[in-house]
Amino acid sequence: MKKHNYSAGPCILPQEVFEKSAQAILNFNNSGLSLLEISHRSDDFVAVIEEARALVIELLGLEGKGYKALFLSGGASLEFLMIPYNLMKENGKAAYLDTGTWASGAIKEAKIFGETVVVASSKDKNYNYIPKGYSIPADADYFHCTSNNTIFGTQMKEFPSVDIPLVCDMSSDIFSRTLDFSKFDIIYAGAQKNMGPAGTTLVVIKEEVLGKTGRTIPSMLDYEKHIKAESMYNTPPVFPIYASLLTLQWLKKLGGIAAIEKLNNAKAALLYAEIDRNPLFRGSAVAEDRSTMNVTFLLNNEAHTPIFDAMWAEAGISGLSGHRSVGGYRASMYNALPLESVQVLVDVMKALESKV
Amino acid sequence: MKKHNYSAGPCILPQEVFEKSAQAILNFNNSGLSLLEISHRSDDFVAVIEEARALVIELLGLEGKGYKALFLSGGASLEFLMIPYNLMKENGKAAYLDTGTWASGAIKEAKIFGETVVVASSKDKNYNYIPKGYSIPADADYFHCTSNNTIFGTQMKEFPSVDIPLVCDMSSDIFSRTLDFSKFDIIYAGAQKNMGPAGTTLVVIKEEVLGKTGRTIPSMLDYEKHIKAESMYNTPPVFPIYASLLTLQWLKKLGGIAAIEKLNNAKAALLYAEIDRNPLFRGSAVAEDRSTMNVTFLLNNEAHTPIFDAMWAEAGISGLSGHRSVGGYRASMYNALPLESVQVLVDVMKALESKV
Repeated sequence: MKKHNYSAGPCILPQEVFEKSAQAILNFNNSGLSLLEISHRSDDFVAVIEEARALVIELLGLEGKGYKALFLSGGASLEFLMIPYNLMKENGKAAYLDTGTWASGAIKEAKIFGETVVVASSKDKNYNYIPKGYSIPADADYFHCTSNNTIFGTQMKEFPSVDIPLVCDMSSDIFSRTLDFSKFDIIYAGAQKNMGPAGTTLVVIKEEVLGKTGRTIPSMLDYEKHIKAESMYNTPPVFPIYASLLTLQWLKKLGGIAAIEKLNNAKAALLYAEIDRNPLFRGSAVAEDRSTMNVTFLLNNEAHTPIFDAMWAEAGISGLSGHRSVGGYRASMYNALPLESVQVLVDVMKALESKV
Repeated sequence: MKKHNYSAGPCILPQEVFEKSAQAILNFNNSGLSLLEISHRSDDFVAVIEEARALVIELLGLEGKGYKALFLSGGASLEFLMIPYNLMKENGKAAYLDTGTWASGAIKEAKIFGETVVVASSKDKNYNYIPKGYSIPADADYFHCTSNNTIFGTQMKEFPSVDIPLVCDMSSDIFSRTLDFSKFDIIYAGAQKNMGPAGTTLVVIKEEVLGKTGRTIPSMLDYEKHIKAESMYNTPPVFPIYASLLTLQWLKKLGGIAAIEKLNNAKAALLYAEIDRNPLFRGSAVAEDRSTMNVTFLLNNEAHTPIFDAMWAEAGISGLSGHRSVGGYRASMYNALPLESVQVLVDVMKALESKV
């Protein structure tokens, strides 16, 4: 049976990524060697990481604008501390927007390094909205926000204009929608949503913001060292980077971010329309801040839970359970999830309505 | 043509690891889903990481001795700073043995955190031997050494007995030889030699040595947090961990470390005997400290280089060029390299002797 994979991440990737990456493990570039056993300094792998880095810059529309792309490891959680290490001056301060679990995780790490101003928080309503109308201290060393909140199903639709470096954790919606990416000075994202499998972290940096803190930064946490080493300061996570390249190539072939955005909007429109129409369900996030990537919703009558759960499982849907801090359901609809899978879920929701 | 892969790392892995991991990318555990698209919190993946962690402890003979195994990311280079962060007291000091490029990289990071005593160094002879007879300050917070020096082809045959925590970077010889691993308090190793593909780092920790520094440790650098989260503090590098599990399963089936040690000793004996017998060659490292993993050797007459290089390439040998800081050749003979591949190299060396 065809599976409809709504996993919040690691998540569905294009089928051709699975096929080509499996093939590369058996025989990479027809070399007679596995991708897993070649040197990361070999011509074949250097070509992979260089193409991946260039493709990121191209897809984000950042060519010729002073940005470098890095494929690091450690996950977005390691960036939580690399950001203050690289941007917060000794005795300086940073400004953060608190929109959920990951934003507050980033805030926690920043506090270890210095004064951390939380400009606004939606914690009062279990993060079901994006705060607006906050002011950002002009003397902060940078402003940090989280573009999409995987757990709570909210997404920033606008970003503040600031004169200080703008840093954004885009782990769960990078490459999903068109934005003016040149507004941002550092963008980072764990690969395991729209970019590839778990095991590598993308960091896109406007070089001019670095080197201003006066801190001694441990080598592995120093963006300047990683840039100088062309993202090969030490052995990089070879396979996750290769599978990410395949995913980026797939996206480019499809027409890039503008093309996938149309599909993502269609998927979101279809599912939110059903949530709003179907009297059995309600959305968790406030309407204006709803995420196109992670749709969080609840049954109005919890007694319907066992029957609904059995119905979607029977339809081949997996990964639909909500995060424990919100409950209910979460449909994660990353780039590679087809519209057809959303239709299957909507049909199950309608079938539940007829049944109960 | 069959390839004889002498790559220094990432390196040859068992053929069954390539086959089984490629299959898991297409259909994992017959679930209809790829290993790359499932949640790291799914039962199927939790079983993988738990088995891998247990197998490490079992293969090292550390069951019931207070150790925990973690699969982190960032590479051994990230451990260079995690070690002092977790073990060096505020205003404390650490002791290091300098046996090569990676040891000195670890020393450089430790110096950021506090007083770092280098108890001995073989830098005077381009690291071609392992210092002996040094003394370790009894009041250091820990002693750090590197068991095998990939670049220079030296290997520690004995380890000092100390009353302070003993920390060892075993990146390039873990699981290759029997040792009393319970002498060590922290062992770490990048996966990409004997354990799996690039992208995960093994850290084996005797829990009782943690929590004594008084430092505020950023979450992602804190071993106690990783242990508490059972090696899933954040999304782990799923594929590299799975391929590592397959490699550990292969080793166990083969008879564990004692069995592979016999094979590794046979390979090393075969190649070193030829280096010592053949008048065209000489070894780089002093005899008593020669590594069984990385055999470094030189042509006595550099004019033979082009002909020798053409001969081994023609025999299907790859990855034999030495590191730029030593020159000549480096035959990396990790666990998965068969004795047959070593015989092919020895035959080429003999053929060169007949030819010139």
